[in-house]
Amino acid sequence: MITKYTKFIAGIVTISIFYLASCQQSTPQTNSDQDGRVTELMSQMSVEDKVGQMTQITLSMLMKDNQLNIEELKNAIINKKVGSILNVNGTPLSIEEWHELLTSIQDIATKETTLKIPVLYGIDAIHGTTYTQGSTLFPHNIGMGATRNPDLVKQSAKITALETRASGIRWNFDPALGIARQPLWSRYEEMYGEATVLSTVLGSAAITAYEEDGLDQVTAVASCMKHFLGYSVPLSGKDRTPAYIPDTQLREIFLPPFEAAVQSGTSTVMINSGEINGVPVHASKYYLTDILRGELGFEGLAVTDWEDIIRLHGRHHVAATPKEAVKIAINAGIDMSMVPVDYSFFDYLVELVNEGEVPMSRIDEAVYRILKLKYDLGLFDNAYPEQEAIANFGKASYKDVALNAALESITLLKNEGQTLPLDKNAKVLLMGPAANNHGSLHGSWSYTWQGQDESQFADETLTLKSALEAKIGTGNVTCNTTAVFEDAANTSLDFLKKNAAKSDVIVLAIGEKSYAESPGGIHDLNLEANQIELAKAAYATGKPVVLLIAQGRPRVISPIVEGADAIVNLYRPASQGATATMEILFGDYNPNGVLPFSYPRHAGDILLYDRKHTEEVTEFIPDSYGGGGYNPQWAFGYGLSYTTFEYGDIQLDKKAYAKNETITVAIDITNTGDRDGKLAIDLFVSDLYASVTPSYKKLKKFSKENFKAGETKTVTFTLDGKDLTYINAESQKTLEAGEFTVSIGDKKSTFELK
Amino acid sequence: MITKYTKFIAGIVTISIFYLASCQQSTPQTNSDQDGRVTELMSQMSVEDKVGQMTQITLSMLMKDNQLNIEELKNAIINKKVGSILNVNGTPLSIEEWHELLTSIQDIATKETTLKIPVLYGIDAIHGTTYTQGSTLFPHNIGMGATRNPDLVKQSAKITALETRASGIRWNFDPALGIARQPLWSRYEEMYGEATVLSTVLGSAAITAYEEDGLDQVTAVASCMKHFLGYSVPLSGKDRTPAYIPDTQLREIFLPPFEAAVQSGTSTVMINSGEINGVPVHASKYYLTDILRGELGFEGLAVTDWEDIIRLHGRHHVAATPKEAVKIAINAGIDMSMVPVDYSFFDYLVELVNEGEVPMSRIDEAVYRILKLKYDLGLFDNAYPEQEAIANFGKASYKDVALNAALESITLLKNEGQTLPLDKNAKVLLMGPAANNHGSLHGSWSYTWQGQDESQFADETLTLKSALEAKIGTGNVTCNTTAVFEDAANTSLDFLKKNAAKSDVIVLAIGEKSYAESPGGIHDLNLEANQIELAKAAYATGKPVVLLIAQGRPRVISPIVEGADAIVNLYRPASQGATATMEILFGDYNPNGVLPFSYPRHAGDILLYDRKHTEEVTEFIPDSYGGGGYNPQWAFGYGLSYTTFEYGDIQLDKKAYAKNETITVAIDITNTGDRDGKLAIDLFVSDLYASVTPSYKKLKKFSKENFKAGETKTVTFTLDGKDLTYINAESQKTLEAGEFTVSIGDKKSTFELK
Repeated sequence: MITKYTKFIAGIVTISIFYLASCQQSTPQTNSDQDGRVTELMSQMSVEDKVGQMTQITLSMLMKDNQLNIEELKNAIINKKVGSILNVNGTPLSIEEWHELLTSIQDIATKETTLKIPVLYGIDAIHGTTYTQGSTLFPHNIGMGATRNPDLVKQSAKITALETRASGIRWNFDPALGIARQPLWSRYEEMYGEATVLSTVLGSAAITAYEEDGLDQVTAVASCMKHFLGYSVPLSGKDRTPAYIPDTQLREIFLPPFEAAVQSGTSTVMINSGEINGVPVHASKYYLTDILRGELGFEGLAVTDWEDIIRLHGRHHVAATPKEAVKIAINAGIDMSMVPVDYSFFDYLVELVNEGEVPMSRIDEAVYRILKLKYDLGLFDNAYPEQEAIANFGKASYKDVALNAALESITLLKNEGQTLPLDKNAKVLLMGPAANNHGSLHGSWSYTWQGQDESQFADETLTLKSALEAKIGTGNVTCNTTAVFEDAANTSLDFLKKNAAKSDVIVLAIGEKSYAESPGGIHDLNLEANQIELAKAAYATGKPVVLLIAQGRPRVISPIVEGADAIVNLYRPASQGATATMEILFGDYNPNGVLPFSYPRHAGDILLYDRKHTEEVTEFIPDSYGGGGYNPQWAFGYGLSYTTFEYGDIQLDKKAYAKNETITVAIDITNTGDRDGKLAIDLFVSDLYASVTPSYKKLKKFSKENFKAGETKTVTFTLDGKDLTYINAESQKTLEAGEFTVSIGDKKSTFELK
Repeated sequence: MITKYTKFIAGIVTISIFYLASCQQSTPQTNSDQDGRVTELMSQMSVEDKVGQMTQITLSMLMKDNQLNIEELKNAIINKKVGSILNVNGTPLSIEEWHELLTSIQDIATKETTLKIPVLYGIDAIHGTTYTQGSTLFPHNIGMGATRNPDLVKQSAKITALETRASGIRWNFDPALGIARQPLWSRYEEMYGEATVLSTVLGSAAITAYEEDGLDQVTAVASCMKHFLGYSVPLSGKDRTPAYIPDTQLREIFLPPFEAAVQSGTSTVMINSGEINGVPVHASKYYLTDILRGELGFEGLAVTDWEDIIRLHGRHHVAATPKEAVKIAINAGIDMSMVPVDYSFFDYLVELVNEGEVPMSRIDEAVYRILKLKYDLGLFDNAYPEQEAIANFGKASYKDVALNAALESITLLKNEGQTLPLDKNAKVLLMGPAANNHGSLHGSWSYTWQGQDESQFADETLTLKSALEAKIGTGNVTCNTTAVFEDAANTSLDFLKKNAAKSDVIVLAIGEKSYAESPGGIHDLNLEANQIELAKAAYATGKPVVLLIAQGRPRVISPIVEGADAIVNLYRPASQGATATMEILFGDYNPNGVLPFSYPRHAGDILLYDRKHTEEVTEFIPDSYGGGGYNPQWAFGYGLSYTTFEYGDIQLDKKAYAKNETITVAIDITNTGDRDGKLAIDLFVSDLYASVTPSYKKLKKFSKENFKAGETKTVTFTLDGKDLTYINAESQKTLEAGEFTVSIGDKKSTFELK
């Protein structure tokens, strides 16, 4: 790992040398431990002390009647020497409650133990500071992917760092770097999209924001790239179930965001709970040591996900006993076990070390990483919540960032006859289960894990109903507030019939209720029949209908696309999502979000933008099954604006390039409409022939630019060799001579690589 | 390959020695070429002669106005030296037409060329002799999998050999050995089911039947194991599109049927048109030489599928030119190119040989295999259609085999309140698009490629309507003959309303029209809404409704399961399918087919019977998404009878076994009902812990037994080490000590492997 701590000396030293060093020393010592404090501390530690540091338990183990149970806390920290606690608690706390809680924990850790090692508290602040009352929540990553704007990701992550640190917490289990290629999966919304480079660029932007100020600063948190590796494509679609990813595709599609995250200096990694090709990642030396440490050069802390060591026995069945599970995982390269509901890990691992089944060098390596992170985070200097951080919570400017992120993410998919923008004098009938519901706009990890507890949202957070009323006045709004997702038609049809006639337009807010992780599993990608029925009933009124879709994944809506006058995909726009939606609906903002995924037309016809040529229309893939080839409802990168853009020809500085040359790609783009607007610009590269079948195209660069009405701008991108490589059948990165095509918008140009 | 030709000397010689021999000699010589005729012939051949032998073109290239174009035929055989022709012609021919056609071809090949090498004619006789008028067609393999009866497969294949050879054709592109694990795929019906061992055992039974008499006998044809390898699981579900199969799973699930096929002596192999992990199989030395020749020891002829070499350029994009495509494929291990619509392959390959880009040794190896097959088939002794074979066509007894196969395949899935058997005096209203349609009962490769030309079925072939009338008399049958699959509801509802009241029962025949290969692609596994609507309308009449489902793959019907009184899955039962259906409906036959697949309940919830433990219900896979875990509509192996069976405890001869010991598994099964019946018995093995996550269970043995009413029988299976191995993460077959469970019916027993 070339983190900011080692960068200054890393210079010409290769990653592989770092790797050798970290493998050969039982107590790895890098120059960031200049004063030797970690090494010194470790020299005083018993096996039990060390294994305790590797143990992470859940806060809920330490709670009783909603209060911290001091006796249990003492048992954990003093007797079981627990080094880390993670948050799992039902409801969000106030800043004051957080400070009180963490003070109690650190009091015991730093005053009642011999070694006085502070506890490392970790939390899921996934799209904002999830578990603190009144925090700002930003659009889920799938929406951030739609913005094509790394600055917004960076600003959002920075605020998350500030509000998390203000809550006294210095370790955030974020960002998620999976690639959203399995739309049935319940965590799809936590991913940046189906193109690898979205996660690579946006994930790294988040990591930089979290850590760039220095972990000992009150503006930073330790980030956690997750879930390493291959988590996002369970074959069945269900969370934490097996993925089958050949090594070539693993490295081509799924590994690059982690490579970039290491380069961006992420301090920690969380491991994928699932299995790849029948090998649980938590049991795999190949993934956890050979690739993560050896190839990526990562030197930070590797933590499991929930219970994942013991599950090598109980769920994966690769360990015949729970104790063997601990042995396998630690020897494979796990540093810290999110046990988290008992002390079995501690007991087994102490035994295994004493029996020589886990080498002391492996324990020392893990503990070194843990203690080093605690030092880097400043916990040894001040383990307590930092009073000066409190002022960084809840600043007014955060709302602007959340609003901008929502505005730039929301994606206009259909706008027949310029239905949008709506007239502010229109009488609007607002219907549907998302009309007056926070959860569906926020998604997972929103004050509660499932995001479904409406009482936990701040009073000032608007629903679509309240935002609409704020925009055009309550007198112009009729809203059905009784609709529920489970039975959208039955809870709405009477209201619709009664109120449609006196309205000018129906705004129908449908989609998915909030969910997180496994409970969000579905068994059909088609949107539920009851919502389809409601939409058709709305169309039958003859009034113009605007569909707003709040959803974490692209549910198939083909039966109701044609009947809609306008369709707006909201994703999970979060705190300012309702306001942003109304800005767009009424034309106060010109939409510019573009799809970070291929929106499927049919549930059994999932092809992604980077499909292979054999998946294009040919005589073998005729139109007879509904269009053939890549035939999504809306293509990757699609999104409408209230203005129009024209692309000039792509200008390449040369016709042929050597492999080490930089390729400059320029294009003139003109806003040909009569209002200002931002434009997301995707640059795709196609390798025409390669020994592993090349994709039809791959997104390599993207940007977001503002264009005034009538303005022409030259937009420039640069490509180099690493944008043209592919992974060959022997899992090696390969740069081959040949023809390539670069495309932007409807324009395309070809060059040769010599 | 240990074929029957080499078996007598193979004895203790290992496969690897054969492989080395075939690799090291440019003209491989096995003892089957005892008289050296192949070698002698090859010594007289020019490069052009040899490359011509490697060229296969389609018959349709040689046809004009439905007549053989003798000039074009001469050009092909004399100038381009074409060695093989495959059938692609619109409609089936009579025996006489076949003889005439093949006589014309062999006349030119054996009389007007210098070398007098006969042409090898190949055909797709997939489930019977597809392209000869009046042939007997058997249930598609998916139905044969439901029979659990290798004897029926063998009998069917034997008849196919007889009728194909009677047509003058000696090479059959059958059997298909893929595993049906992607229900969207249009060739699902051509596979034996989702369990590997079904294809392993039934595929080998077919090969034995095709070849055991000796290829020079009029009772035999050369078989063709296909499509090697990994064809059956395209990720998108569309035919000939990319599959992603890690090597461990490739060897665990997909390779065993091919291993068994080689052991069973198959003479040829056809290659998968698709790509595995981005590598087109036709371009892969790893698959075509390292695995096929090296590991499997196969020595027979490897032919491409349709146009698959040129497509390495045009579709897969791994070859920058068509010529490079030829070079890659031949060097990878292809022996014969199904070009088949031009002579480009011939021209390119001659150039490549002359340029040294393809070694002569590779050409010689290929040509040796081709000529040896021609010798083995007796073509050099008599190239012409064999007159004595004609008597083997269309024997009355073939119908009995086709009927038995259909009877043993058809699977009773629901029988509420003993709706079935029906009373023969009942007034039956027969409805639905499959009611009077041959194609849906026959599926692909039925007289025509798509099986949709109703005029090509023999007059004596019954539809469900005519079979029903034959069973209970026309007076008791009211049938809607106007329903079509594309619009089942609109073409049926009026008829239903008009006739339901005067009927005792509604038999509703739904499912899928016939299709083959890519045109059978679908975009949603849910059965089309118009058929769902029709079923619901039938239920609304209040009459008992029996659903008959003719389909090639398990279309999701969950919305209409509850309302049905009885549900019968027909698969594609072919020639005698309608008769068999009526035998079962009216109780003249006791059904015993069992599902060869997990019938999905939801289109987005595809889990197969051998799922992993992480896919079972746990706290992470809650009931909230519809049952959780493995929750199919009907489980793998499910199928009802008109009688009942009880399983005694499983008896194992020991509690612990050494790795080289045979395990004897016995179970007493009793027919506890009052009528005779056959029972399909599946034996599953579970490896409780392994380094690659073990499946919940795996089918290892199966049989079909007849039980008289009240009879108890002891059924015995034996297992040995190879039934307990798994493929580890390093792609090696592994036999590990540990606990295993064996289960049959609702009984289970555990043993230890030491």
